[in-house]
Amino acid sequence: MPGGATANRPMRALQVSLGDRSYPIVVGAGALERRDLLEPIVAGRSVAIVSNTTVAPLYAGRLRAMLGGAAQVVDVVLPDGEAHKHWQTLNGIFDALLAARFDRNSVLVALGGGVVGDMAGFAAAVYQRGIDFVQVPTTLLAQVDSSVGGKTGINHPLGKNMIGAFHQPRLVLADVACLQSLPQRELIAGLAEVIKHGAIADWAYFDAVADDLPALLAKDTAALERAVARSCEIKADVVAHDEREAGLRAILNFGHTFGHAIEAGMGYGEWLHGEAVGAGMVMATDLSQRLGLLDAADGARIRALVSAAGLPVAAPRWSAERYVELMSVDKKAERGTPKFVLLEALGRACVRRAPDDALRATLAATATG
Amino acid sequence: MPGGATANRPMRALQVSLGDRSYPIVVGAGALERRDLLEPIVAGRSVAIVSNTTVAPLYAGRLRAMLGGAAQVVDVVLPDGEAHKHWQTLNGIFDALLAARFDRNSVLVALGGGVVGDMAGFAAAVYQRGIDFVQVPTTLLAQVDSSVGGKTGINHPLGKNMIGAFHQPRLVLADVACLQSLPQRELIAGLAEVIKHGAIADWAYFDAVADDLPALLAKDTAALERAVARSCEIKADVVAHDEREAGLRAILNFGHTFGHAIEAGMGYGEWLHGEAVGAGMVMATDLSQRLGLLDAADGARIRALVSAAGLPVAAPRWSAERYVELMSVDKKAERGTPKFVLLEALGRACVRRAPDDALRATLAATATG
Repeated sequence: MPGGATANRPMRALQVSLGDRSYPIVVGAGALERRDLLEPIVAGRSVAIVSNTTVAPLYAGRLRAMLGGAAQVVDVVLPDGEAHKHWQTLNGIFDALLAARFDRNSVLVALGGGVVGDMAGFAAAVYQRGIDFVQVPTTLLAQVDSSVGGKTGINHPLGKNMIGAFHQPRLVLADVACLQSLPQRELIAGLAEVIKHGAIADWAYFDAVADDLPALLAKDTAALERAVARSCEIKADVVAHDEREAGLRAILNFGHTFGHAIEAGMGYGEWLHGEAVGAGMVMATDLSQRLGLLDAADGARIRALVSAAGLPVAAPRWSAERYVELMSVDKKAERGTPKFVLLEALGRACVRRAPDDALRATLAATATG
Repeated sequence: MPGGATANRPMRALQVSLGDRSYPIVVGAGALERRDLLEPIVAGRSVAIVSNTTVAPLYAGRLRAMLGGAAQVVDVVLPDGEAHKHWQTLNGIFDALLAARFDRNSVLVALGGGVVGDMAGFAAAVYQRGIDFVQVPTTLLAQVDSSVGGKTGINHPLGKNMIGAFHQPRLVLADVACLQSLPQRELIAGLAEVIKHGAIADWAYFDAVADDLPALLAKDTAALERAVARSCEIKADVVAHDEREAGLRAILNFGHTFGHAIEAGMGYGEWLHGEAVGAGMVMATDLSQRLGLLDAADGARIRALVSAAGLPVAAPRWSAERYVELMSVDKKAERGTPKFVLLEALGRACVRRAPDDALRATLAATATG
């Protein structure tokens, strides 16, 4: 296949099946330089590379070199971090697109982590009522999670991702070579979602991740490719059955009701999303055991892998009232009573409302950090 | 049928056919009090009536009385006018919904004109990635135009409706009795879209509107019902064939490329949308004649009806350069070259790029106000 210097390396490809919104995900070192895949999408169109101050200097130039067929290429560089995932930053994207006269035939390319992807995706969802976009995720979290499924959005002072849209990309290029520049703390945060995918849907994958953990922490390319590809497969499979999160898709929120409460309570950006999910998974595991759904041995394996990955296992030591308050605005709560994604077994998730006493016992046991 | 005091009056009903996003439009005096239609949508759910400072005192109480089955009803009262159709006002809706703990099972009811409908609809499109909404349009413009087709959005300083989404309502209740409280200037502005529907799609309807004009201007209930129902039918038929404005739907923009330029150039809110469309239709009619598409007799009939309705027939006297500049950010422009919706005959629209000299001649002939 034609393309950049690394295009001869074999890559993994999978399809997210969503009818006329289906799209391919290509996973591999050098995926960023797949001009052959980018060209048909950008040819003759206005393209904006939306990135941030950290990622743009590293990869925007290489990506731009693959967009020679575009009518024009504009760089939009956002401030880095979850703290900037709000309307003002989003409006900066609109300002840039309007200043460059982007019409509804234009294309956004999101180059960066989950925050860039969520904001660029939401900008694409609502700019002139919707334009095409391509995801080039450069963090492990974005590669295994936020680049699959079409969730886009921004935060509100009263809640995370409260304003957003479902908007599917046309193409995802997950270049694991980009992870070499990723700070170790962020790599580890991404592993939380990898562990989650095994825990909710595939016990054999959970075991494989445990075996691969030293290689993953050392950023071994082959191990990263295996994890990104399998995680994307699992998530794509769930999303294909429930694009708008009417039911099944909720299982992807394992650890997230607690995790979002931690993020909101700390102030966005203090804990990384994956760190909050790590502690949140330990809390959801504890609750699963308390409700008699999960046996102690599987619970212990989950806690052990979260811990071995270097993720926090103890949540902030706040009162039960504070957690309940923080969780009640979560999207998965309906009319104030939170539901939880729990485990019936390692590799099998379910959704349950939890009695108040069990929830309080879990909080007492796990909110000890 | 059960319902309020006026529910025994016969009403007109039509269906907008969009697969699983199909919805009914009920047209008639007293439609606001169709508790029987509202109840199945709001039962047990949190409901926000989004209105403005002008409309809320007139109708919010009567509407609220129809929502007895809701879990809670919150009033969100926006400032009145196109000048407030921006992010800050939209964010006020989000603040109110989050303060009242609205979850993704909540419902917005848009009670008001096009600005309220566009903003409440866009709020519903992106609040927690999309919630249900109901339209109760209280202006003629909203009843015949913005409540059909799912276009929602807000303005940006560089362009009208630049940020938005397609989001279909669950139900539209078009109560023509509400038009009795509508200022005459706004009634006339709404007639611009009524005339447009005849001009682009149905010459017999165009003639019927001309015959009914005195009754419409006198707010005769039967004439208003006929016009609202037939205009909704025409628009619904176009939208059913092209929900996302890929092709056919563009014909609904007859008069709008010029009209948006007038609105943007004057500053939003100076001319009413319908007034700008009135002058815009005269400009598009002139251009249609200049390009040899439309004969002089049909052109004269369009100008005569726009004028008889009390709409402006002359656009602001600006330079051709200023018009071209203002039109080039319009959504229908692709890569800077504006396309125009023109008429091949009274009742038959088409889309054409116009040569620069023809456009300049039209501007010289019509931008004389």
